[in-house]
Amino acid sequence: MLEELKEKVFQANLDLVKHNLVIFTWGNVSAIDREKGLVVIKPSGVSYDTMKASDMVVVDLHSGKVVEGDLNPSSDTPTHLVLYRAFPEIGGVVHTHSTYATAWAQAGRDIPNIGTTHADYFHDDIPCTADMTADQMAEYEYHTGVVIVNRISSGNINPVHTPGVLVKNHGPFSWGKDADQAVYNAVVMEQVAKMAFISLSVNPDTTMNPLLVEKHFSRKHGPNAYYGQKKKQ
Amino acid sequence: MLEELKEKVFQANLDLVKHNLVIFTWGNVSAIDREKGLVVIKPSGVSYDTMKASDMVVVDLHSGKVVEGDLNPSSDTPTHLVLYRAFPEIGGVVHTHSTYATAWAQAGRDIPNIGTTHADYFHDDIPCTADMTADQMAEYEYHTGVVIVNRISSGNINPVHTPGVLVKNHGPFSWGKDADQAVYNAVVMEQVAKMAFISLSVNPDTTMNPLLVEKHFSRKHGPNAYYGQKKKQ
Amino acid sequence: MLEELKEKVFQANLDLVKHNLVIFTWGNVSAIDREKGLVVIKPSGVSYDTMKASDMVVVDLHSGKVVEGDLNPSSDTPTHLVLYRAFPEIGGVVHTHSTYATAWAQAGRDIPNIGTTHADYFHDDIPCTADMTADQMAEYEYHTGVVIVNRISSGNINPVHTPGVLVKNHGPFSWGKDADQAVYNAVVMEQVAKMAFISLSVNPDTTMNPLLVEKHFSRKHGPNAYYGQKKKQ
Amino acid sequence: MLEELKEKVFQANLDLVKHNLVIFTWGNVSAIDREKGLVVIKPSGVSYDTMKASDMVVVDLHSGKVVEGDLNPSSDTPTHLVLYRAFPEIGGVVHTHSTYATAWAQAGRDIPNIGTTHADYFHDDIPCTADMTADQMAEYEYHTGVVIVNRISSGNINPVHTPGVLVKNHGPFSWGKDADQAVYNAVVMEQVAKMAFISLSVNPDTTMNPLLVEKHFSRKHGPNAYYGQKKKQ
Repeated sequence: MLEELKEKVFQANLDLVKHNLVIFTWGNVSAIDREKGLVVIKPSGVSYDTMKASDMVVVDLHSGKVVEGDLNPSSDTPTHLVLYRAFPEIGGVVHTHSTYATAWAQAGRDIPNIGTTHADYFHDDIPCTADMTADQMAEYEYHTGVVIVNRISSGNINPVHTPGVLVKNHGPFSWGKDADQAVYNAVVMEQVAKMAFISLSVNPDTTMNPLLVEKHFSRKHGPNAYYGQKKKQ
Repeated sequence: MLEELKEKVFQANLDLVKHNLVIFTWGNVSAIDREKGLVVIKPSGVSYDTMKASDMVVVDLHSGKVVEGDLNPSSDTPTHLVLYRAFPEIGGVVHTHSTYATAWAQAGRDIPNIGTTHADYFHDDIPCTADMTADQMAEYEYHTGVVIVNRISSGNINPVHTPGVLVKNHGPFSWGKDADQAVYNAVVMEQVAKMAFISLSVNPDTTMNPLLVEKHFSRKHGPNAYYGQKKKQ
Repeated sequence: MLEELKEKVFQANLDLVKHNLVIFTWGNVSAIDREKGLVVIKPSGVSYDTMKASDMVVVDLHSGKVVEGDLNPSSDTPTHLVLYRAFPEIGGVVHTHSTYATAWAQAGRDIPNIGTTHADYFHDDIPCTADMTADQMAEYEYHTGVVIVNRISSGNINPVHTPGVLVKNHGPFSWGKDADQAVYNAVVMEQVAKMAFISLSVNPDTTMNPLLVEKHFSRKHGPNAYYGQKKKQ
Repeated sequence: MLEELKEKVFQANLDLVKHNLVIFTWGNVSAIDREKGLVVIKPSGVSYDTMKASDMVVVDLHSGKVVEGDLNPSSDTPTHLVLYRAFPEIGGVVHTHSTYATAWAQAGRDIPNIGTTHADYFHDDIPCTADMTADQMAEYEYHTGVVIVNRISSGNINPVHTPGVLVKNHGPFSWGKDADQAVYNAVVMEQVAKMAFISLSVNPDTTMNPLLVEKHFSRKHGPNAYYGQKKKQ
């Protein structure tokens, strides 16, 4: 079942390696079939070198139960499911331990929106979640999703316009309309995390005019977007 | 028309990828035919993997109208045109979001001329533009060119001797006598941006003797230049 | 003798190059046959390009004498032997001068456990040894092992749960149940050293909740570990 | 003439590219035939992609005149000659603008000897030269050699034990018994420059016990050296 989606999720997982976002097995991509209420996700701890499209695991959006697949799904599956349930607009989710984004997560700081590369894809600062409580840790991966959703909600952030977060002391999660766009946004997060680290080293107090944020974001995403070939008015 | 120039602009765009200055579609190169008053530029948002020389777009230097080409020209085309009109000596323009130069642009600081690698190609500190006003943002790409020209002018900078700027919170623009030299200067900017970041981390107060700047710049570019094979007097 | 183990040690040495942990000949891997009391180790100063599995040297765990092999064993052999004698649970040892882990060793600081990437593989801060005394330096490589064992012991650290240290002003040593796992842990050390450097630059005071350390470590290594495919309960 | 030495110098120049020490034409290697008093050096400003062994230029050690070759020798030739004349033990010289070593030169700071990787190859801090005077700049490349020799001399440094310097605001020069060893030392300088940058960011006050410097240096270079395969006593 869902052979086409499995192939897409498989390829998107390999793209994480191609873009140098993962070493060993430290990353996972999923995508959802909204009509069927089923999520396709990478198996847990399987090497990217030997992984096949048919190894992708199908789980139920609501129960989290494995519907098809011989392998354990990613241990982060409950986090992915919380995000799909909370954000109905999204179709793909990515988690990595990419170097610079993870370093910001370890620092416990939002990545400040100080450049148009950031504003082109993320409207707001990329937020960092709060600490998890001891009670929450008892169902750790589920509550990883909960603290993400709470952070997006408490910040009045539109998850379509700011498609990613840092989980404190852990690493980045990103999402998009499908698996490919979620991977794209993971690449952007890593790049803006690296550039912000350098910028703050050179000038710790730098800021960006909020008008410039609006300009750049709307240039690519607003109703009058004019970047690229597809959006000719 | 302009098939030879299209091929050169196409190859120069691929060189940005080869030199690791761009990811995805985040960069563009143009070149000008001064006699015909026509500029050849990369199409907007097209992948470097599938791009062909025949995809290059020809626009009129003065009106900015597309003269030939099926695709939208780069959304940064108005910026390129302002530079060609203001700096009659230049033949090629490059824009990238290369990591270290963009980080300096995000920091809002000029890249200080503290080494001979810098002085060999850029006579002055590489200047960072002022913030754009809300009014200017209404015609954003056009005014990106305007703030560049204003910064060069207000700094009494010779644009041939200092062939590049940082647009504040955005990224680097560079230029040269043709597309290849503009790419070369983009590579130099990224490298000196990286080295200056490291140098300032190791010694925030470092400077260079202005006499050494003159010596190195003139060694390659002065009337008695003696570097390389072509400039034997 | 020990042809299979020689092949594994040989391949593990090549993996150091593949993972960009060594340049020139600056690294070595060994593994032990506990039943026979013999250690297989890379020869000293031999290029990775021309090295063969049959070049691996066999030394006696207790006497340190070469039992088989035409080449000198790694000059770090006495350090490896001290570790095998002090930590009976380990089967492989790695030493490199990998960039970021070595930089922390040069800084004389423990790598703080501030992220789940670290906690997934190293329960504690990765400790840095004390200075060696002048007397100890007379038998330098032997006492390199001694200061490692002393640091593990004085910190009440379980060497299986924290499989690596920094030797002050020198570089990292790591270990594991076999040569492959010791190499894996060397890659993890380099990655967490890099991320911690960036995190502290962005936020010098960052910390991680100790409960989160326990959660992540036990997720992969505790009695109820549930990461991957092999540990289904 | 000197075909064998030309081939070695040619290959050593290509090794600079292989080790990522140069971009474009920013580096040069030379070697000397002491008996004949002739130096073989890379031509000036020639691309590494098209360069041939027969392009190497032969110059006289004392007069600096071109003895054989159709191309201009490297513009840094007078610097190389000063070093060969001042340090009779050396057989090869390298100059690059490698990223981290150049950044330290721009910072105007000696690279402190804080690790055994450094001490294995450079006995002392890698010294940075003084500013050149205006008078010296009139014969710039010649005096680049002079300030190097003066710095080595005023620091009571043995140029065989500390085979490299930083020219202030410019970049590294290294040397060795032949071209290959000079390239090797250039790689070491770049690596220790990178690690020292990271170490000082993590701990600005770090130092190394001078006894450890002696131990590591003598382990590879002293009368009782025991590293590698060739030095068995």
